[in-house]
Amino acid sequence: MSEAGELRVIPVRGLPEIEADASLGTLIAEHTELGAGDLVVISQKVVSKAEGRVRRLSSVIPGSKAKKLATKLGKEVALVELILQESVKVLRAEHGVLITETHHGFVCANAGIDSSNLPDDDTVCLLPIDPDASARVIRSELTAALAGKPGVGLAGHSARSASAESHPRLPKTAVVIADSFGRAWRLGQSEVAIGCAGLMPLDDLRGRRDAHGQELKATVIAVADEAAGAADLARGKDSRIPAVIIRGLSRFVSTENGPGAASICRPRGEDLFR
Amino acid sequence: MSEAGELRVIPVRGLPEIEADASLGTLIAEHTELGAGDLVVISQKVVSKAEGRVRRLSSVIPGSKAKKLATKLGKEVALVELILQESVKVLRAEHGVLITETHHGFVCANAGIDSSNLPDDDTVCLLPIDPDASARVIRSELTAALAGKPGVGLAGHSARSASAESHPRLPKTAVVIADSFGRAWRLGQSEVAIGCAGLMPLDDLRGRRDAHGQELKATVIAVADEAAGAADLARGKDSRIPAVIIRGLSRFVSTENGPGAASICRPRGEDLFR
Repeated sequence: MSEAGELRVIPVRGLPEIEADASLGTLIAEHTELGAGDLVVISQKVVSKAEGRVRRLSSVIPGSKAKKLATKLGKEVALVELILQESVKVLRAEHGVLITETHHGFVCANAGIDSSNLPDDDTVCLLPIDPDASARVIRSELTAALAGKPGVGLAGHSARSASAESHPRLPKTAVVIADSFGRAWRLGQSEVAIGCAGLMPLDDLRGRRDAHGQELKATVIAVADEAAGAADLARGKDSRIPAVIIRGLSRFVSTENGPGAASICRPRGEDLFR
Repeated sequence: MSEAGELRVIPVRGLPEIEADASLGTLIAEHTELGAGDLVVISQKVVSKAEGRVRRLSSVIPGSKAKKLATKLGKEVALVELILQESVKVLRAEHGVLITETHHGFVCANAGIDSSNLPDDDTVCLLPIDPDASARVIRSELTAALAGKPGVGLAGHSARSASAESHPRLPKTAVVIADSFGRAWRLGQSEVAIGCAGLMPLDDLRGRRDAHGQELKATVIAVADEAAGAADLARGKDSRIPAVIIRGLSRFVSTENGPGAASICRPRGEDLFR
C-alpha cells in the first residue's frame, strides 16, 4: 500500500447531458486523461438517468398507506408512494420528513428520490437498483476504453467480461457513485458512496498502532464516503459536472471490484438508532 | 463567489511533535506556503494537546453513575467518568458503546475522548473546550505569520487582535479543526469539522434552481465536513501529519470568522434520532 500524500480532485468538464442507455464509463474516458490508480466519482443522478430510473409522478397509483402518510406529512402522494415502493421500512415520518431504509439498506430521506436536474415537476429520479453493480459496469467500460476497445452500454451487462479483473495489466481505476445524504445530528447533507467498484470502501486499521504504540481512535476510515465528499467540493451543485477524478488514492484502488458500498451499511443488529 | 474547480489537498510535512502551549498557526505557516483562500485542516488531537486538554486516568475520581455505566459497558471507569464530565446527555449506552451529546452539542462516541497518539495507556485527550475559538486563534496566528509578525500562542488569546478581520488586506485563509465521528447508519468513521473560522461551514442553496429550473435536492451542503473528510484522505492515520492544506475552496473563505462549526450541530428540537 503506497503512502498517503497529495490529492488532486479534478472535475470532468464537457460531458454531454446524460440520457437513457448512455455509456457513462466510455463518455468519461473520452473526456479526461485517466491514469492508473485514479478514482472516478460519479453523481447518482446521471447513473440513474442512464439506467432509466426515472418516473412520472402522474403515472403513479398511490395506495392507502401512501395516502395517509402524504396527508400527515404534507407531501405529494405520488412521491410518497414511490418512496414506500423503494423502501423496506419507515424509520421516521414527522415534521414533513420521511426517513426510510431503502431496499439497498441505506437510511436516508425520501429513499433518495428527487426531482432536481430533471426536465419538469412531474419527473423524479430513483436510486439505481443495485448501485454497486452500476459501479462495476462503469468501471468495466472505463477499463475497456483505456484498452482502446469500444465500451458497452449500461443496458448491456456483458460489459463485465471486459472488467479490470480480466485485464490485470490494464491501469487500475476505481468508481464511486455518490449521493447526498443528511445526517442524524448534523445539519446539511454530505455526499456518500452508494456504489463502488475497485475501491476499498473502508480502511480497517483495527489492531494498528500509532507512533507511541497506542491503539488508533478512528479504527475504520470511511474512505469511499470521504472521497465522495471531496468530489462534491470540486463541482457546484447547479453545475453540469456529474463526474470528478480523484488522483492520489491508489493505495485504496484494487484489481478486484471488492465488496462495494453495500459493505458500508451498518447491519441492523448493530444499529442503535433505527 | 468563484466557480467550483480543481482542488488540491496537500499534507503539511515536517511539523514537530506538538506540545502544550505550541503556537499551531505559527508552526503551520512556517512549514508551508500558504496562499490566499487556502483552508488549513488541523487534527483535533494536536489542538487539544496544544491547549493542555490531556488527562491522566489514574487521577480521575469516578462517581457512582460512572461506576454503574462502566460495569454495564465493560469500559474503564475513569474513562467513563471523564466522558460523563464532558457530556450533557447520554444517548446510548449499549454493546460497549457510549454515545453522548457533549457540552459543545456534538453527538459522538466517548465524548470525543481517546488515547491514540499519546505517550501511554494512562493518558487521554479531551476535545478542545471551544473548538471554534481554537480555530479563530489558529487563524489569527496564521494571519499574523503571513503578515510577517510573530504569532501568539494558543494560551494567549490576545492573538485575536491580529485576526484576519482586522487585517482586511492580508490574504484570507480559513481553519477547520477535524475529528473522526462515527455515523448512525453507516460503518466506519469520517472526519467532520468540530471547529472552524473563516470558512462558510454550510453552503445554503435553498431557493437556488438547477439548469432545468427545478429545485436542488441537496439544499444545504456540509462544506466544512466534506473538507475535513477530504483532508483525512491526504494523511495516513498513523502518520504524523496533523495539518493539511486544501486549495481551491476560496469561494467559501471569508474575511469574517463566520458562525463556526457550532452552527453545524442540529438543534435538539429538529432532531428525530436523539
